[in-house]
Amino acid sequence: MLASVGPVAPLDVVLRDAVGCILADDVTATHDLPAFAVAARDGYAVAAYETAGAGYASAQSLPVAHDVRPGAGPLRLVPGTAVRVASGAALPLGADAVVPLEETDRGAARVAMQRPAVPGQHVRPVASDVRAGDVVLEAGTRLGARQLALAASMGRGRLRVHPTPRVVLLSVGDELVEPGTHADRSGHGVFETDGHALEAAVRDAGAASVRVGILGDDRAVLREAIEDQLVRADLLVITGGLSELTHDTVKDVLATMGSVRLDQVAMTPGQRHGFGTVADDLASDKSVPIFALQGHPVAAQVSFEVFVRPALRAMAGHTEVFRPSVAAEAVEGWVSPPGLRQFVPATVLGSPDEGYRVTPIGDPSAPTVSALAHANALAVVGEHDLTVHPGQVVHCLVLEG
Amino acid sequence: MLASVGPVAPLDVVLRDAVGCILADDVTATHDLPAFAVAARDGYAVAAYETAGAGYASAQSLPVAHDVRPGAGPLRLVPGTAVRVASGAALPLGADAVVPLEETDRGAARVAMQRPAVPGQHVRPVASDVRAGDVVLEAGTRLGARQLALAASMGRGRLRVHPTPRVVLLSVGDELVEPGTHADRSGHGVFETDGHALEAAVRDAGAASVRVGILGDDRAVLREAIEDQLVRADLLVITGGLSELTHDTVKDVLATMGSVRLDQVAMTPGQRHGFGTVADDLASDKSVPIFALQGHPVAAQVSFEVFVRPALRAMAGHTEVFRPSVAAEAVEGWVSPPGLRQFVPATVLGSPDEGYRVTPIGDPSAPTVSALAHANALAVVGEHDLTVHPGQVVHCLVLEG
Repeated sequence: MLASVGPVAPLDVVLRDAVGCILADDVTATHDLPAFAVAARDGYAVAAYETAGAGYASAQSLPVAHDVRPGAGPLRLVPGTAVRVASGAALPLGADAVVPLEETDRGAARVAMQRPAVPGQHVRPVASDVRAGDVVLEAGTRLGARQLALAASMGRGRLRVHPTPRVVLLSVGDELVEPGTHADRSGHGVFETDGHALEAAVRDAGAASVRVGILGDDRAVLREAIEDQLVRADLLVITGGLSELTHDTVKDVLATMGSVRLDQVAMTPGQRHGFGTVADDLASDKSVPIFALQGHPVAAQVSFEVFVRPALRAMAGHTEVFRPSVAAEAVEGWVSPPGLRQFVPATVLGSPDEGYRVTPIGDPSAPTVSALAHANALAVVGEHDLTVHPGQVVHCLVLEG
Repeated sequence: MLASVGPVAPLDVVLRDAVGCILADDVTATHDLPAFAVAARDGYAVAAYETAGAGYASAQSLPVAHDVRPGAGPLRLVPGTAVRVASGAALPLGADAVVPLEETDRGAARVAMQRPAVPGQHVRPVASDVRAGDVVLEAGTRLGARQLALAASMGRGRLRVHPTPRVVLLSVGDELVEPGTHADRSGHGVFETDGHALEAAVRDAGAASVRVGILGDDRAVLREAIEDQLVRADLLVITGGLSELTHDTVKDVLATMGSVRLDQVAMTPGQRHGFGTVADDLASDKSVPIFALQGHPVAAQVSFEVFVRPALRAMAGHTEVFRPSVAAEAVEGWVSPPGLRQFVPATVLGSPDEGYRVTPIGDPSAPTVSALAHANALAVVGEHDLTVHPGQVVHCLVLEG
């Protein structure tokens, strides 16, 4: 599946939309930063050699010729004078030091200084931060606050990034009832859970989600919904409608739409699984990856973690697409089905120093929504292991929180 | 400052808006989950005792009386028959086991089974996930995908949470020029950086940001902007305009508006700092925390990390408000000013097993935007330390990424 998806095509976006994205091109400095020498403190700009007498019996003082505030145009220091400057203001030509307010009498017409200034003190020289022509941010960098600060301070209002993948979520099933509405409980309805859970999981993966909501078990409706969403989706996730019984529509509809495989994957939960691509007829070069996950909320979420999340991270341009994992000693034993890799909601405690311990939550053979909500990890038992013994080391996928 | 802010008042929000928020009230199950016994596999619902002969010389078969799909109403198993069920469908009354399709001949009129069923096999009993009356999610829980799945599956369409704090960002200074526009470089303009950087930092802290943009050094304009924003802000951050020179307006304006302190904090960068609260005249009980940070982008970001981010986490209801920190050995030495706690952009490498090493980036006495963009930590040197020696252990604040 990872081989079938790649980073979303680069796009120029404004800084706000670049937050959290991966930079697609190097950012090269077009000018020095700062572009001119700048005062690093509020104080007085001086030629240091003219303050040599300060601090002796007769305090040295200089007449104050000007005030300079940030943004003011270039100014030349008249020999034998000082210029009052604000932190961030351009240093007048001819000045080479700033005497901070605290080391003076704060005079307005004349200023007396406590000690001689050292050339360069409290001055940010031209290009001391960045030199024109330098690559300041490399392609592949994740853009957080500090990287955006650097881009903005270079004057970049837009950046070329792999934009956030847009994921459309479709939940299929006549039995589904929207939470918060009055379910006809006698009708054995089931509250729609997958769309809500995956909306959060998609955002946690750094992508954007559009939850279309509930679709009934109707081939024409499903087909139309998929076609409608292709235009705005970078990836489609369908949950439910995957059983082998005749009323279930997902496999039939997908079979006619693109190159989608429906498989039995050797894992539990999440054994039934569909993956492929569907071409958008309205955009000849666009092909949208599509995942079909089992409707049971634990299966849907485990399949999302194992397959969809890494694909989304790859589409967003990340090179590290997998969640961290740890090796943990089982506190208690449990059984695992033959031929299936088992994912068990679990609590992992410990630290790298003292090692980790893992305890399954609930019945490992029937993981529940409640168990998953209280887990901080998925314990992964290999398809050839039939039992986990107490003390056995188990590979655990660490979930967020 | 932390003592002056508290969690934002709880609000009922739809599930989508609850993602990432802290739950304000316990969620109690109003019904059992599942509310009825459910088939865990596609197959045939049977009374297990009626399959005792399966698997012997004469394969046992039962007539198939019905198909049951998820959402279908209650049904009663006619003794001596089987009912075809889809995974997730309600088990007919009288049935106590599901024989998976794979263990049958998949018959439509009659079904032959390979082996006797064990009572309870492939059945999710009533309340096996959650029992009515149980507290399923406790107040204080962070709501991720898995917790929202549990709430949705209980039928909850809204949850009472501490909503995401809304942060309004104001950047003050006549010298500021919006990135992406053509700066009059001869005029010594400076590209507006703080608003863009803090917009990302606020979102990284889990809050929502509104960047108002650039305001000039004008008391009336600043005062009006602050008053205008109080209605939508849970917290205000002003950057720039904090120098001691007369053109700077922030201290004058804030002095007349609320109980705001302007201090020299014993740290570098970020020595000048304002904090307080301003009452919203239009909402008598609303008082908005306000931070005034120095305009230099490194100072603004360090002050944000040290003071604003923990306040935002507390307002969002988190109990853990600080970033993780590690103790690391200095790879090289540097000097630190007396009387000021020094925050130095740095690279921390290592692991808990082998220990951590910290290397400052650039000149620790003049941290740059570029250094901060390439750092993964801030090394913190105490106000009484005048030097860091190679090999000395330094406390480091670990930044994201």
